[in-house]
Amino acid sequence: MTVRGRFITVEGGEGAGKSSNLAFIQSLLEAAGKQVLFTREPGGTPLGEAIRELLLGHKHTGMADDTELLLMFAARAEHLQQKILPALEQGVWVLCDRFTDASFAYQGSGRGLSLEKITKLQQFVQGSLRPDLTLLLDLPVETGLQRAGNRSEPDRFEREAEDFFERVRNGYLQIAREEPERVRVIDASPALPQVQEQISATIHHYLESLDE
Amino acid sequence: MTVRGRFITVEGGEGAGKSSNLAFIQSLLEAAGKQVLFTREPGGTPLGEAIRELLLGHKHTGMADDTELLLMFAARAEHLQQKILPALEQGVWVLCDRFTDASFAYQGSGRGLSLEKITKLQQFVQGSLRPDLTLLLDLPVETGLQRAGNRSEPDRFEREAEDFFERVRNGYLQIAREEPERVRVIDASPALPQVQEQISATIHHYLESLDE
Repeated sequence: MTVRGRFITVEGGEGAGKSSNLAFIQSLLEAAGKQVLFTREPGGTPLGEAIRELLLGHKHTGMADDTELLLMFAARAEHLQQKILPALEQGVWVLCDRFTDASFAYQGSGRGLSLEKITKLQQFVQGSLRPDLTLLLDLPVETGLQRAGNRSEPDRFEREAEDFFERVRNGYLQIAREEPERVRVIDASPALPQVQEQISATIHHYLESLDE
Repeated sequence: MTVRGRFITVEGGEGAGKSSNLAFIQSLLEAAGKQVLFTREPGGTPLGEAIRELLLGHKHTGMADDTELLLMFAARAEHLQQKILPALEQGVWVLCDRFTDASFAYQGSGRGLSLEKITKLQQFVQGSLRPDLTLLLDLPVETGLQRAGNRSEPDRFEREAEDFFERVRNGYLQIAREEPERVRVIDASPALPQVQEQISATIHHYLESLDE
């Protein structure tokens, strides 16, 4: 019997170094002998791409909030059913660049869409499925925005953006407080080698905790 | 204060005469002094049309059931928020060619998608909103298919289609049994004048029941 793969997600705001750290995590898992599928939403299915196109193309023309959430979770359902679940069932580990936590943080905490409605759709699409492990790359908003390339004095529009990213960060940290077993907070403020030291420790600790 | 409009839907299978009877109902309501908006899903919003395109274009390529239901209700949410609810609030009566009952009958009873999941999305998108009145044009499947133009002896494929439409019909009748106040069954088997007599009686009875 094949042991089911594990579902690992990486979350974090702007400038948190998600890309390099995702590659690093993949290399750690592969070094431990795991077969890894790296993916991100909408997951590369043609339908998922088409839904993403709808979401982005109509973003500014007054789409109803419910419509936006339903479309986002339609793309997620497709990603999950066509790609993530089949891989997990074959024993492949799935490493995903953002997942439902990002809906809570960005659409919910950031933009004020109903957290209760997001929870309902999470339940609808995922049932009891949650990531087995989530690494939250956390750092102060200002540091993140500077790293992401926004180095000038902020104008009013950028300050509003900062408020938004503060809400996103707090949304993520709230999830981490509620689910400390699943969500491990990585301090992403120091230089990359120190961040990767934390990541490495977290991944190895997780691997050792598995009774396989 | 404007009195809120009423939301009237018409449901029914193949060959039930929905089109001519919708026009007839609209004329009855207008004769009673109501301003009527006639609509059908996806409701003519560009986004709704794009979602419908996704549903139809990918129908045969293995879209996950959850994805299909979420897309269908995304289109419905948009139709409701952008068109139906604003009209009702302005006192306009909305006459809609099929609504959520059709999801239960066709996707649920007909194709076997989870009725429980459809109920959850109905709750998500509509809350407690239901049509104020639904006319179900009911007739035996064979009669309906004959009227719809399928007059030859049925082959195996057509017999399967008949089974499907039987399940759809039974699904509709089940809803009518559960919600007899809202859903009025119109016997659509006789000739049009007798069908319209029943419709006229139902509409007038409904109008008289309103305390306005």
